[in-house]
Amino acid sequence: MVRQAGFPTGRSRSTQAERALAFRKMHEGPGLLLLPNAWDVAGARLYELEGFRAVGTTSAGIASTLGFPDGERMGLDDNLGVCRRIVAHVAIPVSVDVEAGYSGCLDGLSETIARVIESGAVGVNLEDGAKAGCGGSAPGALLEPSAQADRIAAARQAADRAGVPLVINARTDVFLAHGAVSEDRLREAIDRGNTYRSAGADCVFVPDMGDLGEAEIAALARGIGAPLNLIAGERTPSVPRLEALGVARLSFGPRPMRAALHFLRAMAREWLATGTYSRLHSGESLSYDEVNAWFTPGDSRVT
Amino acid sequence: MVRQAGFPTGRSRSTQAERALAFRKMHEGPGLLLLPNAWDVAGARLYELEGFRAVGTTSAGIASTLGFPDGERMGLDDNLGVCRRIVAHVAIPVSVDVEAGYSGCLDGLSETIARVIESGAVGVNLEDGAKAGCGGSAPGALLEPSAQADRIAAARQAADRAGVPLVINARTDVFLAHGAVSEDRLREAIDRGNTYRSAGADCVFVPDMGDLGEAEIAALARGIGAPLNLIAGERTPSVPRLEALGVARLSFGPRPMRAALHFLRAMAREWLATGTYSRLHSGESLSYDEVNAWFTPGDSRVT
Repeated sequence: MVRQAGFPTGRSRSTQAERALAFRKMHEGPGLLLLPNAWDVAGARLYELEGFRAVGTTSAGIASTLGFPDGERMGLDDNLGVCRRIVAHVAIPVSVDVEAGYSGCLDGLSETIARVIESGAVGVNLEDGAKAGCGGSAPGALLEPSAQADRIAAARQAADRAGVPLVINARTDVFLAHGAVSEDRLREAIDRGNTYRSAGADCVFVPDMGDLGEAEIAALARGIGAPLNLIAGERTPSVPRLEALGVARLSFGPRPMRAALHFLRAMAREWLATGTYSRLHSGESLSYDEVNAWFTPGDSRVT
Repeated sequence: MVRQAGFPTGRSRSTQAERALAFRKMHEGPGLLLLPNAWDVAGARLYELEGFRAVGTTSAGIASTLGFPDGERMGLDDNLGVCRRIVAHVAIPVSVDVEAGYSGCLDGLSETIARVIESGAVGVNLEDGAKAGCGGSAPGALLEPSAQADRIAAARQAADRAGVPLVINARTDVFLAHGAVSEDRLREAIDRGNTYRSAGADCVFVPDMGDLGEAEIAALARGIGAPLNLIAGERTPSVPRLEALGVARLSFGPRPMRAALHFLRAMAREWLATGTYSRLHSGESLSYDEVNAWFTPGDSRVT
């Protein structure tokens, strides 16, 4: 629980509570909340400078920067160490991805939530079990809805004890665990969403493998009595369409990181294949000075 | 000097010495050594999987992932913490960028080198003073050649004490500090290169602002009695041309990271501007499973 030396957030608890309330309010419109996902400080600052109102982390992305596969293989210390740095360097609200909570018991989960708040974050994602990730495979079993409700209630209580109205984003992996969208799975996602909302969640996150159509999205938004969070994929309707369908928040998971890695790979393959470096062209890149200026040491937000 | 818990390199000192010798030999041809620069484990693994024979770090890139501008503003602990993780996850030699050595005195520099070796790296970059970075501005003054020679000699002695034939890449910032290439500057770069070689450097790194022409490159390669390292930029001749001109090694500094950030920015701007996500298209990206497989926990190299 000791604050990491050199990374004070520079914000008091009451300010953190205010930021949490402001973040919660962003889910009420007008318009959909675009929540881009970062895996390091550079990306988080980039998002902030581009005008995003808040930023989320991606546990899978952070894990890969540190050398771990996804799925709580990295420790919570590693995960929150990156979150803490991000919080220290951006002024917008930060929501952290702590996967399934890094503990199977309620006491352990409460401790995780206390540490999330201590890191300076004002929002958290909590999954109901399947570690299929976003767009991946190898799903596990989902927790029983009542068991996950107990976990969400414990998380809420832990946040209350810390005095921070943490925005709890309850993620149900119904579609990741079971693949194709069906009438039954849609019903299950809605039921789980409402159960989690009643247990204390602020919003409900229903990631899919890209096969949620507009009719299903509208049914989810209508059926779940809480702001609905979807994940962006190649077949996801555009933001204006999602807004018309009643979606409150759109996040990206590790997909932007994988797209950036794909870009890096294409760049590296050119070096090897033809011995040229066309993607380094300065006119199409960021300058040394521009990136450095993102991190001015005198920046009051990081003192 | 305590090895960071959880990140054993799994290699003995003698193996590290063997790797250092293998890395040194890569500078002798045939062909130019392409040394791509990484700022986290994901990128380093990507380079390794693409077939690069060795990998370098970029201090400016690492700094920005952690929230610092370039120029030894992050601490050596932070810098080497990332290097240590990279070394633990790749089997190819790793050369680390410790800027100007993180100390103005010889004892401090020796301690830096001891810690570089303790991190598992087998190569190091040492600059002669200007903190202009790669392609940037605001240069500082260069150290006197004899003072930098003393530092290189101290670094060599520190490596000898550790029993590792560390590949010392002596960087001269003549062209970064003074801008445009001239006859005098070319002479100075050659003289500095030879002075540093005599002091114990294995190779000489002459980054430029993109204005080194083929004639100047050939003059550098001919004039410096050590393998010559250049940095890739938009106007740099292709690898086959550099080989013909006698260049031994080509690195990239923070430029690939900035290009990747530029790609991320373009992606984010599309989300904001049109509410679409075309750059996330899975057919053009890496899959969740593919990236996870880079970091299998059972990987013998990280146990």
